[in-house]
Amino acid sequence: MITTDICIVGAGPVGLFAVFEAGLLKMRCHLIDALPQVGGQLSEIYPHKPIYDIPGFPSVNAQELVDNLMEQIAPFHPTFTLGERVESIERQADQSFVVGTNEGTTIACKVIVIAAGLGSFEPRKPAIERLEEFEHGKGVAYMVKNPELFRDKEIVLAGGGDSALDWTIYLANISKRVTLVHRGETFRGAPDSAEKVFNLAKEGKIDLILKANLKKIDGNGSLKSVFYEDADKKEQTIKADYLIPLFGLSPKLGPIADWGLGIEKAQVSVDTTDYSTNVPGIYAIGDINTYTGKLKLILCGFHEGAIMVQSAFKHVFPDKHLSFKYTTVNGVHEF
Amino acid sequence: MITTDICIVGAGPVGLFAVFEAGLLKMRCHLIDALPQVGGQLSEIYPHKPIYDIPGFPSVNAQELVDNLMEQIAPFHPTFTLGERVESIERQADQSFVVGTNEGTTIACKVIVIAAGLGSFEPRKPAIERLEEFEHGKGVAYMVKNPELFRDKEIVLAGGGDSALDWTIYLANISKRVTLVHRGETFRGAPDSAEKVFNLAKEGKIDLILKANLKKIDGNGSLKSVFYEDADKKEQTIKADYLIPLFGLSPKLGPIADWGLGIEKAQVSVDTTDYSTNVPGIYAIGDINTYTGKLKLILCGFHEGAIMVQSAFKHVFPDKHLSFKYTTVNGVHEF
Repeated sequence: MITTDICIVGAGPVGLFAVFEAGLLKMRCHLIDALPQVGGQLSEIYPHKPIYDIPGFPSVNAQELVDNLMEQIAPFHPTFTLGERVESIERQADQSFVVGTNEGTTIACKVIVIAAGLGSFEPRKPAIERLEEFEHGKGVAYMVKNPELFRDKEIVLAGGGDSALDWTIYLANISKRVTLVHRGETFRGAPDSAEKVFNLAKEGKIDLILKANLKKIDGNGSLKSVFYEDADKKEQTIKADYLIPLFGLSPKLGPIADWGLGIEKAQVSVDTTDYSTNVPGIYAIGDINTYTGKLKLILCGFHEGAIMVQSAFKHVFPDKHLSFKYTTVNGVHEF
Repeated sequence: MITTDICIVGAGPVGLFAVFEAGLLKMRCHLIDALPQVGGQLSEIYPHKPIYDIPGFPSVNAQELVDNLMEQIAPFHPTFTLGERVESIERQADQSFVVGTNEGTTIACKVIVIAAGLGSFEPRKPAIERLEEFEHGKGVAYMVKNPELFRDKEIVLAGGGDSALDWTIYLANISKRVTLVHRGETFRGAPDSAEKVFNLAKEGKIDLILKANLKKIDGNGSLKSVFYEDADKKEQTIKADYLIPLFGLSPKLGPIADWGLGIEKAQVSVDTTDYSTNVPGIYAIGDINTYTGKLKLILCGFHEGAIMVQSAFKHVFPDKHLSFKYTTVNGVHEF
């Protein structure tokens, strides 16, 4: 059993920065994330995307921000359980918690902080049959985790957002053939990226099929072909090793919904005085929480974490007096 | 008369970042600061100090953060009135405001945002006579604005905090002689800096006089000598071109106190839903405001600014619908 002061559910930017604020108050943190790496959406969905609204960064790539945060919290030696999903929390007689994951890992803690962003999100899937048959490495992927998998392969991407555009541009360079199927004529993604994709199509480096809808897939153990209905409602076939539908992510609260927390529109209600939930000892910060005037901005989650730890301190050290000091005066002292 | 959407009183980091968030909603900002440069306390009091708790920066020098913020808001072309103090606000018939400064500058605006930090702060002065006689360039200074002024001069510093330590270390290198007078035996400032000061004294590079109190000063048109009472209650004299008492700053709300705002312990009370004051159209963000659970952190002021602009929008564009978009999706478009 892992023992810590604060168990943070979600290792995105907001969960990571909470480690820093907790560390200033000498509280140790353990983070759990269903994804195999830290950084949440930033690392999983848009690692190479610039973010413009992090204060003090005219522009910062998502992965760079995550790397910076990891460096910033290093003095406090956070520990991690990655690639596992929180499934249970049990209140102990002394009011502490034991958190359990789907892999059987258990974490004893005094405070739980839910910093789970969109929740345990799942990719939105196209409404076609036999998808499940080709998932898990047999030809259908909903995310590009390792682009090398697609080197020299024939790829069909589907979607009209940034992910679809970005990966089309990226894979055009390394895959044997890339086809982008999109039901519209214009793209929701960044105009720059859309322009690049149109140019790649013009130069014959990709196939761009607009006003088309995925219809079915076929194969025998592994994917062989993708069928779509074109602008004239005619069915067409593309030979394909991989189909990558990038239709966004559908957030799911998952087991969090069963913990007795106040939930409002799939988000956790909090008291903005300290970002506590209705369950003593459980807090929620970042995109997962909701309150009047809530903005889903990373910078707001940073603030929520800083305020939250002041209250969490009372659960972790009920007998200690909190003396809050500014880092400009005291620096950062690891423990 | 200058015309703008939002008049921001205070050009510290929080006021500066508010320009960015306002800009995303196409609102123009004009900033007023009593100091001659932007950056507030960061540029005025501790420009070379590292800050450790800005999310995403394991460490950042105060002035570097200010410079970054100026770069980040540049696309929105904020305008500035620096070195002037806000003295009056007048409500117009259409509910907009006219803000006036001590120099007679007037700014017409729809919204006022008070981001004045500690207020118009003043240095704490030692309780000795004839100080005023030597202020304004005649030998008594409460801040080091331009260190070159003290090159090859005989300097007496007084105080036990970071400013006193940092400037003792700095001036030891360029001044003819530096004496640090401190009433205690230990220092409130960073242990590292204190150690450096003790070492400089040991090496004979400065004079360190502990358990001593300033008693009086003397001179004729310009400062000549500083008198102090030593640990044995004996009066001693130091020849000095400059006396720099660094006893911290005493915050003063100044004219803000007269604007009909809810004030609590010299801070402006706000509603955390949108950081509005009790006066419609006037908001307060950053160190100047207060609410239950308030932390005086720069990162909290960033959050407050982001939330605030959503509400300010309704005053600036009463007939427009607010469509909030993420910078990751849309980038930053100047106007």
